[in-house]
Amino acid sequence: MLFLARMDVQFPSHLSPEDVTRMQGLEKEYSQALQQKGRLTSIWRVVGEYANYSVFDVASNDELHGVLSGFPMYPYMKIKVTPLAKHPNSVR
Amino acid sequence: MLFLARMDVQFPSHLSPEDVTRMQGLEKEYSQALQQKGRLTSIWRVVGEYANYSVFDVASNDELHGVLSGFPMYPYMKIKVTPLAKHPNSVR
Amino acid sequence: MLFLARMDVQFPSHLSPEDVTRMQGLEKEYSQALQQKGRLTSIWRVVGEYANYSVFDVASNDELHGVLSGFPMYPYMKIKVTPLAKHPNSVR
Amino acid sequence: MLFLARMDVQFPSHLSPEDVTRMQGLEKEYSQALQQKGRLTSIWRVVGEYANYSVFDVASNDELHGVLSGFPMYPYMKIKVTPLAKHPNSVR
Amino acid sequence: MLFLARMDVQFPSHLSPEDVTRMQGLEKEYSQALQQKGRLTSIWRVVGEYANYSVFDVASNDELHGVLSGFPMYPYMKIKVTPLAKHPNSVR
Amino acid sequence: MLFLARMDVQFPSHLSPEDVTRMQGLEKEYSQALQQKGRLTSIWRVVGEYANYSVFDVASNDELHGVLSGFPMYPYMKIKVTPLAKHPNSVR
Amino acid sequence: MLFLARMDVQFPSHLSPEDVTRMQGLEKEYSQALQQKGRLTSIWRVVGEYANYSVFDVASNDELHGVLSGFPMYPYMKIKVTPLAKHPNSVR
Amino acid sequence: MLFLARMDVQFPSHLSPEDVTRMQGLEKEYSQALQQKGRLTSIWRVVGEYANYSVFDVASNDELHGVLSGFPMYPYMKIKVTPLAKHPNSVR
Amino acid sequence: MLFLARMDVQFPSHLSPEDVTRMQGLEKEYSQALQQKGRLTSIWRVVGEYANYSVFDVASNDELHGVLSGFPMYPYMKIKVTPLAKHPNSVR
Amino acid sequence: MLFLARMDVQFPSHLSPEDVTRMQGLEKEYSQALQQKGRLTSIWRVVGEYANYSVFDVASNDELHGVLSGFPMYPYMKIKVTPLAKHPNSVR
Repeated sequence: MLFLARMDVQFPSHLSPEDVTRMQGLEKEYSQALQQKGRLTSIWRVVGEYANYSVFDVASNDELHGVLSGFPMYPYMKIKVTPLAKHPNSVR
Repeated sequence: MLFLARMDVQFPSHLSPEDVTRMQGLEKEYSQALQQKGRLTSIWRVVGEYANYSVFDVASNDELHGVLSGFPMYPYMKIKVTPLAKHPNSVR
Repeated sequence: MLFLARMDVQFPSHLSPEDVTRMQGLEKEYSQALQQKGRLTSIWRVVGEYANYSVFDVASNDELHGVLSGFPMYPYMKIKVTPLAKHPNSVR
Repeated sequence: MLFLARMDVQFPSHLSPEDVTRMQGLEKEYSQALQQKGRLTSIWRVVGEYANYSVFDVASNDELHGVLSGFPMYPYMKIKVTPLAKHPNSVR
Repeated sequence: MLFLARMDVQFPSHLSPEDVTRMQGLEKEYSQALQQKGRLTSIWRVVGEYANYSVFDVASNDELHGVLSGFPMYPYMKIKVTPLAKHPNSVR
Repeated sequence: MLFLARMDVQFPSHLSPEDVTRMQGLEKEYSQALQQKGRLTSIWRVVGEYANYSVFDVASNDELHGVLSGFPMYPYMKIKVTPLAKHPNSVR
Repeated sequence: MLFLARMDVQFPSHLSPEDVTRMQGLEKEYSQALQQKGRLTSIWRVVGEYANYSVFDVASNDELHGVLSGFPMYPYMKIKVTPLAKHPNSVR
Repeated sequence: MLFLARMDVQFPSHLSPEDVTRMQGLEKEYSQALQQKGRLTSIWRVVGEYANYSVFDVASNDELHGVLSGFPMYPYMKIKVTPLAKHPNSVR
Repeated sequence: MLFLARMDVQFPSHLSPEDVTRMQGLEKEYSQALQQKGRLTSIWRVVGEYANYSVFDVASNDELHGVLSGFPMYPYMKIKVTPLAKHPNSVR
Repeated sequence: MLFLARMDVQFPSHLSPEDVTRMQGLEKEYSQALQQKGRLTSIWRVVGEYANYSVFDVASNDELHGVLSGFPMYPYMKIKVTPLAKHPNSVR
């Protein structure tokens, strides 16, 4: 079951550059593990913004919320989720 | 080069049901040809709306505009395009 | 799996009062069948608006889109869907 | 008498993690007491957001404002209330 | 129990001037009956707009929806309702 | 001459609880004096929000700005003013 | 007492060009009479739009609503009114 | 050549009251000099807001940007500029 | 003096395809004449939309409004104008 | 391939004036190098705002994101990108 998420990152100004770098490292690990498990099937950078569009493949809304709230940078992200269904014109 | 498009369909009330059905048939053909050529890599229905999110893979903005304006239902669609770049956390 | 939907109805002006009444009758049947099957667990009128908030319980996004697009008044409704997860403070 | 509320939480950055944890504990107690008294009939997490949709059953607007402003995290929540009426298609 | 409503009127272009005048007459009667019964305690014109702000005093959300949907011009109005509570600084 | 104002309060995070309490006390005095003079004819709490809707009765725009900017909490309020006129259906 | 109004014109498509021309003629007369009486102190075209910003000088909200609703093109205008007060830095 | 500007002031919370007072003094001088030179032909307070609408008369966009960015409080203002043209109904 | 304009086209449904084609022909002539005279220095299609961004070089706001309102398709366009000034980092 | 970007600058309040000046110097160098390489073909100041509209000429979305995220003031800018295509009426 697929969901599109737009995720915008905004770090509070009190975070040190080291905190930011460390969190970005944890974020990369978490994101890549999700991709390897097939939970996160695509992730793209929005050109010119500290934001991404991602496609998640999960079994339920609860699983999706668990996946999203597990992102190390979750407290600093504004996320909007759109549920997706099969499109009648899709060849897949 | 990838672009995300959200496409919302709104038919004017003067179109007959036959016109609509015919146009949906042409739309399906056009969409599936684009998918077979690899120009349209994904298309999903937005749950509960006459709208889709689609991912296009094209060589240029001009090509993308040609592809989009070629949709048979283009005059009845409101389209918003977001350019996508590679995300540093993507494993692909 | 629960989803909240806000559904706003707007009939085009060319519909006759008879068409509207007939469609509202079909809508009621469809809605009550969904409630009896447990797919639609709550439906409330938004005070002062031709709109409702509804809670759907379905197994997948595809099922939800099928349910929503099956409403007799679907062509005349603007629907916004919000996926819901279990809240940690909920006693249920 | 039912009301739907969307409640978005945003903690100011000067709160310590301990303050946040303590407040979340108080919030849970308060929320569950409201549920046991039947004032709060449903509470759901919005997937991907620090937000909830809740349904309140109260005797008056004044009671509702008292209930909402009594939440321990009330100073850190943005709340939007929608009054609900019985829907003619509801079987309940 | 008080509610503030903003009501914006928009007649469809197919209504004849006679229909409009007739409906405005019915609206006036309905509105004044509500005022005499104390259900509608204030109604003001928004300067420069075909719109009003009104204060309703009703016993429940269901009663309010009944009152609002009973306006002869209800099909041509966009209504937004805000529930009001006693303000701690109010001398009344 | 009547005006409707929506007033939303937001205290900056550097204010101490004592400052807030003191300002709320001054606000109450100021508000009640305005009510006794007939300048502020109604004030209601918006349910679930640190906001109010108020009706002012003043002789001019300049007087209204003086009244509003004199609120002790004026620097912490976002105010939107709507000029009101007599409604043709009003019985008053 | 001054008010700024932004007025956007939108004619319904069923008006004939003759109706439009005739109404624009009546509008000009009305507008210029208001200017000669000092009720309308300035009127400017918004560049690129069928819209204007106007400054009205009236004795009350009721007078302003009368002036605005008297425009021949009032049924085809969307008007937003902002009450103005003397600015402390103004030399006038 | 005329332009309408809406200017909203928001001081950051770290400014001391003395800084604010000093800047307001400089602002007044600058504003009145502009008025005496005929560059700023009107300035009005928006009732209830720390904002103004101003009309500027300048020879070019570059001159206008110079005038606006020269305001002592420019770093703390959000400005929106609307170019104005002669209105066909204006008697001036 | 430069201005950026975003122009969105929307034809009313009662225009025949012939009317549209004829108007697009007139539009092209007008647009190209403006380009040859140097009044319109750039015009780009917004990808996926019946809209353009254009840069105009004119001597005054009045000239710009004349140029814009002279477009054959002006009655069917929504135009938003942004005045531009020289940027300090520009090498031109 | 052309893209229009609107870039709004907002410095956090903890930056010292020296930091700001230094960053503006680096920004100028970076911007002018981009212009000399033909990647940034136009940059204009939005009158009255700390913002610009810029036109970029790049070979791909990835190149554009690299160019934009390389701006020294990138962390303090909100950027919105619009892909542009050739306009049929353009003489270039």
